[in-house]
Amino acid sequence: MAEPIPDALLNRMDAYWRAANYLSVGQIYLLDNPLLREPLRKEHVKPRLLGHWGTTPGLNFIYVHLNRAIRQHDLNVLYVCGPGHGGPGIVANVYLEGTYTEVYPHIGPDAAGLKKLFKQFSFPGGIPSHVAPETPGSIHEGGELGYALSHAYGAVFDNPDLIAACVVGDGEAETGPLATGWHSNKFLNPVRDGAVLPILHLNGYKIANPCFMARMPEDELRKLFEGYGYAPHFVSGEDPLPTHRQMAAAVDACVAEIKRIQADARANGFRTRPQWPMIVLRTPKGWTCPKEIDGKRCEGSWRSHQVPMSEAGTESHLRVLEGWMKSYRPEELFDAAGTFKPELAELAPRGTKRMGANPHANGGRLLVDLKLPDFRDYAVKVAHPGAETAESTRVQGKYLRDVMKLNLEAQNFRLFSPDELASNRWQDVLEVTDRCYTAEIVPGDDHLSPDGRVLEVLSEHQCQGWLEGYLLTGRHGFFSCYEAFIHIVDSMFNQHAKWLKVCNHIEWRRPVASLNYLLSSHVWRQDHNGFSHQDPGFIDHVMNKKAEVIRVYLPPDANCLLSVTDHCLRSRDYVNVVIAGKQPGPQWLDMTSAVQHCAEGLGVWEWASSAGAAEPDVVLACCGDVPTLEVVAAADLLRRHLPDLKVRVVNVVDLMKLQPPKEHPHGLSDAAFDRLFTKDKPVIFNFHGYPWLIHRLTYRRTNHNNIHVRGYKEEGTTTTPFDMCVLNEIDRFKLVIDVIERTPGLAARAGHVKELMDAKHKAHRAYVTEHGIDMPEVSGWEWGQRGKVPRGSSDTAADNA
Amino acid sequence: MAEPIPDALLNRMDAYWRAANYLSVGQIYLLDNPLLREPLRKEHVKPRLLGHWGTTPGLNFIYVHLNRAIRQHDLNVLYVCGPGHGGPGIVANVYLEGTYTEVYPHIGPDAAGLKKLFKQFSFPGGIPSHVAPETPGSIHEGGELGYALSHAYGAVFDNPDLIAACVVGDGEAETGPLATGWHSNKFLNPVRDGAVLPILHLNGYKIANPCFMARMPEDELRKLFEGYGYAPHFVSGEDPLPTHRQMAAAVDACVAEIKRIQADARANGFRTRPQWPMIVLRTPKGWTCPKEIDGKRCEGSWRSHQVPMSEAGTESHLRVLEGWMKSYRPEELFDAAGTFKPELAELAPRGTKRMGANPHANGGRLLVDLKLPDFRDYAVKVAHPGAETAESTRVQGKYLRDVMKLNLEAQNFRLFSPDELASNRWQDVLEVTDRCYTAEIVPGDDHLSPDGRVLEVLSEHQCQGWLEGYLLTGRHGFFSCYEAFIHIVDSMFNQHAKWLKVCNHIEWRRPVASLNYLLSSHVWRQDHNGFSHQDPGFIDHVMNKKAEVIRVYLPPDANCLLSVTDHCLRSRDYVNVVIAGKQPGPQWLDMTSAVQHCAEGLGVWEWASSAGAAEPDVVLACCGDVPTLEVVAAADLLRRHLPDLKVRVVNVVDLMKLQPPKEHPHGLSDAAFDRLFTKDKPVIFNFHGYPWLIHRLTYRRTNHNNIHVRGYKEEGTTTTPFDMCVLNEIDRFKLVIDVIERTPGLAARAGHVKELMDAKHKAHRAYVTEHGIDMPEVSGWEWGQRGKVPRGSSDTAADNA
Repeated sequence: MAEPIPDALLNRMDAYWRAANYLSVGQIYLLDNPLLREPLRKEHVKPRLLGHWGTTPGLNFIYVHLNRAIRQHDLNVLYVCGPGHGGPGIVANVYLEGTYTEVYPHIGPDAAGLKKLFKQFSFPGGIPSHVAPETPGSIHEGGELGYALSHAYGAVFDNPDLIAACVVGDGEAETGPLATGWHSNKFLNPVRDGAVLPILHLNGYKIANPCFMARMPEDELRKLFEGYGYAPHFVSGEDPLPTHRQMAAAVDACVAEIKRIQADARANGFRTRPQWPMIVLRTPKGWTCPKEIDGKRCEGSWRSHQVPMSEAGTESHLRVLEGWMKSYRPEELFDAAGTFKPELAELAPRGTKRMGANPHANGGRLLVDLKLPDFRDYAVKVAHPGAETAESTRVQGKYLRDVMKLNLEAQNFRLFSPDELASNRWQDVLEVTDRCYTAEIVPGDDHLSPDGRVLEVLSEHQCQGWLEGYLLTGRHGFFSCYEAFIHIVDSMFNQHAKWLKVCNHIEWRRPVASLNYLLSSHVWRQDHNGFSHQDPGFIDHVMNKKAEVIRVYLPPDANCLLSVTDHCLRSRDYVNVVIAGKQPGPQWLDMTSAVQHCAEGLGVWEWASSAGAAEPDVVLACCGDVPTLEVVAAADLLRRHLPDLKVRVVNVVDLMKLQPPKEHPHGLSDAAFDRLFTKDKPVIFNFHGYPWLIHRLTYRRTNHNNIHVRGYKEEGTTTTPFDMCVLNEIDRFKLVIDVIERTPGLAARAGHVKELMDAKHKAHRAYVTEHGIDMPEVSGWEWGQRGKVPRGSSDTAADNA
Repeated sequence: MAEPIPDALLNRMDAYWRAANYLSVGQIYLLDNPLLREPLRKEHVKPRLLGHWGTTPGLNFIYVHLNRAIRQHDLNVLYVCGPGHGGPGIVANVYLEGTYTEVYPHIGPDAAGLKKLFKQFSFPGGIPSHVAPETPGSIHEGGELGYALSHAYGAVFDNPDLIAACVVGDGEAETGPLATGWHSNKFLNPVRDGAVLPILHLNGYKIANPCFMARMPEDELRKLFEGYGYAPHFVSGEDPLPTHRQMAAAVDACVAEIKRIQADARANGFRTRPQWPMIVLRTPKGWTCPKEIDGKRCEGSWRSHQVPMSEAGTESHLRVLEGWMKSYRPEELFDAAGTFKPELAELAPRGTKRMGANPHANGGRLLVDLKLPDFRDYAVKVAHPGAETAESTRVQGKYLRDVMKLNLEAQNFRLFSPDELASNRWQDVLEVTDRCYTAEIVPGDDHLSPDGRVLEVLSEHQCQGWLEGYLLTGRHGFFSCYEAFIHIVDSMFNQHAKWLKVCNHIEWRRPVASLNYLLSSHVWRQDHNGFSHQDPGFIDHVMNKKAEVIRVYLPPDANCLLSVTDHCLRSRDYVNVVIAGKQPGPQWLDMTSAVQHCAEGLGVWEWASSAGAAEPDVVLACCGDVPTLEVVAAADLLRRHLPDLKVRVVNVVDLMKLQPPKEHPHGLSDAAFDRLFTKDKPVIFNFHGYPWLIHRLTYRRTNHNNIHVRGYKEEGTTTTPFDMCVLNEIDRFKLVIDVIERTPGLAARAGHVKELMDAKHKAHRAYVTEHGIDMPEVSGWEWGQRGKVPRGSSDTAADNA
């Protein structure tokens, strides 16, 4: 048991807390007169009052107690602020500890600085009202709720000395992601990882309602957290000094327990999942604001959630505000110049021990490049297009296995998946590391250990949240997910993309590794699962975010996937979305061609085009592995049946190439686009996703009116691969019909081909419902294995059916 | 304590279970020879083996035990199957109880029927592999995981006699939504609601990993569920008979406890949240399949998750399969004709007590129309456009208050919100009902009671899941949400839209009430929250689903919102997305005009257009309340500064009108589109959301190349309303500049106007960063209050700045 903290120190801590509260109120309300050295007048108050007071004093309370513990126990602590609405509190503390002025020198440690600090808050041209990328010390946006624990755990993985103090607020505590976030302790290894100290902060109210956790009997709450695997310490109070006393004791107890757990595990190895400590802190909502305003309860009520007085310019409200702020006794806190008094300021930690200056919160500063093997060494040998069959993501998995191997010592690379690593064919990674698991392991478990570097949990939220926390603290990772269910984290992606966009414009934020997604088990090959698992719309969602942070790749084969993967692992500050199939599929490009094709992002496939395609009659474009196979097959059919038709095949790997360069930095120039897609010839574009996305990307292009797009149109069930193509009309037969119908003059002379294709289309449907398998002639990989793709002349007479 | 079930009955139940398991295996593997009356040959086996065995025997086990309890205690039970992968099990049971043949008469109760039953499963042209809309008795798609508990609770709200037996599988148990779904008990009132009986089914493995819940010590697991507020009963076994015995006792104990809780609450009123019973059932994964296949453990291992033998056509595997199926002793279960033996069949409940025939699972059969007041009675009086100011959603809230009132007795209408009901201005509803809360209520709480019909919890997942469960069992509801955070349920929306799309093509599924969203606190008015709360992309997401089930409305004012709301509450089988602001805004249309405008979906606003707009020089189009204000203001500026310019203002309420009619049933004909938007004049389209959506909807229209769209482009922070417009260039000044730049011949003679607008654009930015408020001339609602919108002639000389 630690010594109790002397009251003298607690009283100084209380003064520090009052200073933070004072600055928080000042930020919400004041334009001027920051030290209240003249009577408060209407013109000192902001014309629009925006912000959130309710959670702020509690956040400040926690901050000052963590400061004390950091100094006393020489800790390395990151403050993860779940109730991000409490922006003014975190800003106030980062200012008081001196970090803010170091990062933003114009906000000085004096009255002039205070005035600017107050004015800028939630003010046009200033800073946002929440904890945000602009806030030093933060890796967690205070916008959407639910991910504080996942971020905190992500931050401490492979950071053995780091403690993430993670404040969970009333609102967040009710969300689903947070509710499963507690279970992250089943994946934390005290030998190599740091610790998370969860602090459930029960103010009692969310916006308008009580949090249900605040209304559970304490016995039930204790059981809940013990059931989650924690040892909860309860701190509850309203009267500052006794509450300080309780909190200091609880923090010391938690720190001691964390140290004991870690020392034991590091001395004796991991034996059993420990019961990690946590704190449940109950304080009044809006603590220390007026008990009542206008005769209505304020402190301890939902009325203090945002701004306790929305009209602070009235005379009576001015006096309330003045009295409230003066209750913190600013004259005891700031000297004549408006500088925080040194005897209080010294309570803060020093240098990078200050939570606002913790380097883990600006992960780019700690980022070490991955050691990457030469991806060319993993190439599938492709003697000629279509000669080989491979599972693209399995090939990628071999490469990732060696990325993992080369960086095992650095401990800065992890893979994340909702129980889909092997399903998505990355299982070779398990040759060099295990799946991480610190719950019970029994015989028969497959590659599970506390030391594994693969994190698998059936929660896309956890995977995304852990990965974000891992990346923002300066490490690398890859998230493998079923394509349809990545929508589960649409909103998390939004927040991360917004975070990156804002960071791009903040000088002191250093670049971090990109967030990489492999989306596999995609819409076209949901053989076991069907309609509910078919949704290629994540790309559409991603495209709404700023072009500067978004990249989308659809490599058509394994060698292209290798090239793209290497590129993604080297990139910084992006979200890279890679979509690739796991099923055996034809391989088109040898490695040299693949590298060149990926570097260009898109290009003509001469070998699949017909003779004379330099001046094509029609362009067959494709993007995505399954649509590409159908386009190559359609081009083949056209060569056989309409040998004089000049067909150009264009494949797109980098979807952003389609946009104009002023919309996206990867965008192809209009001239180059016109050269590829012509200015006036029909373009049949076979796309992996929803067809209208291609229109959205190309509507400004010269030839847009001639672009006809095929894609997924929400038709499907558990059926065969080719039947999925037929149901959605992206199949080779339909594409040939499209070409015939849309190429001027062709319909008249190619009626017999159209009829034949239509017959095949129908024959397939009859065949598949009878036999349950695709017609032999359309089984993709078998087709690919038939050998060199015919180039037109010698092999045009007979159809190969 | 109930009497133990006699072993004779348990043995018959075991036989019933074996029959269900036999039929499940048959569905996964067999094309023919359903009763194995001849030696199993390769041609009897499906060429592609698709499905999931692992969870199925446990689901069958639960089904047979629920059947027994329904008969013995005369219960009304809905089976919510979280592990939807177990499709073959549920189909098997629904077939054995006779429902399947009633619904699908071609699947008869004989050998011929069995053959069809087997073949159709996961077969082209057949049924999907999961529990799906096609499955009688289901309201829960077995696709994405996480929502079983939310659906179950939604189903029993206001259904006092219903018990939703909700099976939660290993995978689902790890998800966030499910983890908070347990807390639904804080919102369940035993007086008026039914009960959920959660059955956590721990098979041990997900796809490739153990579930962490299966690896928590039982003491911890017990505490977790007691902490969640449940009384868990543990059933664990491998040997059938003792496990049957345990399970029967557990089910009886739970039923008794549910009856006791309900009887007490209904006799004495609600006093305190009861501790509801639940079952934790541990059985081996793939229970009853071969212990080993090819020398590798199968039963009890992740290897039995999908299809234990992916190649069942080899001779050795044929023998394994035959031995496995025969281990169920089919000769004891089916008679010579292949009919399920009557002495076993009689164990199933009768009629609508059969879970496959429970009418709540086909909610349209129970649906009663809402009593709706005349929405015209809530009209804002608008003497002339712009004369009034109102908060649109507050007006809507008054209407919804009376909808609530009129249907209180019917108990079939609820509102759902993540703590945003009042924030989104629906608080008048609280005049007639409370927020529902069965956790502790204390003085100072605002309109909380166990009887409330507003469900507020800070989990969009819970709101959506409860609402879906409520709707699919035949009731009505509305979900109010911040626009940005509705993305949290993108994936849930996907599943619901897919469910509706499939139901549209199933004769016996009756229409259910539409799922209605109000999205407010939208992108343009996130005054307190800023960038993290700005995302209008849900529309883009919604648009990817089938047009037949999707509707999107952006009413520009309160009267239009009333008309749209009435329409949504009357509609069936749609997802209606309504986007409307909560802030004071100008009111444009009187009720008569609003009704007509909404009926047409879009139209020319003559009063805002300039004289002679029958033959316009330019079209100013708008969709969404804030963009509409800016367009009306821009048209006003144009009238003043360029009085001879003929400007037509078009407002769009029903976004789907923009699509061609072959894409969406609401789509405007090309001729009508051309009349409104012209064939060749510039169209400046000011849109609420991301601009490219308008291009996506209109790219096939004649005049598409002249459509220039303004919208949200991911710029924003906590700032003023007009500054948000300026940052994203949807402001009136920028629109005037657009008109000048894009109208042929205008730039040359309107250079001075362009300069003036540019100066105002810049002046605003300077003003707002200085003062923190918008320039007076652009404060939207003040502008609206200036009076009748000038029509051009008399008021053109001076700008009103």
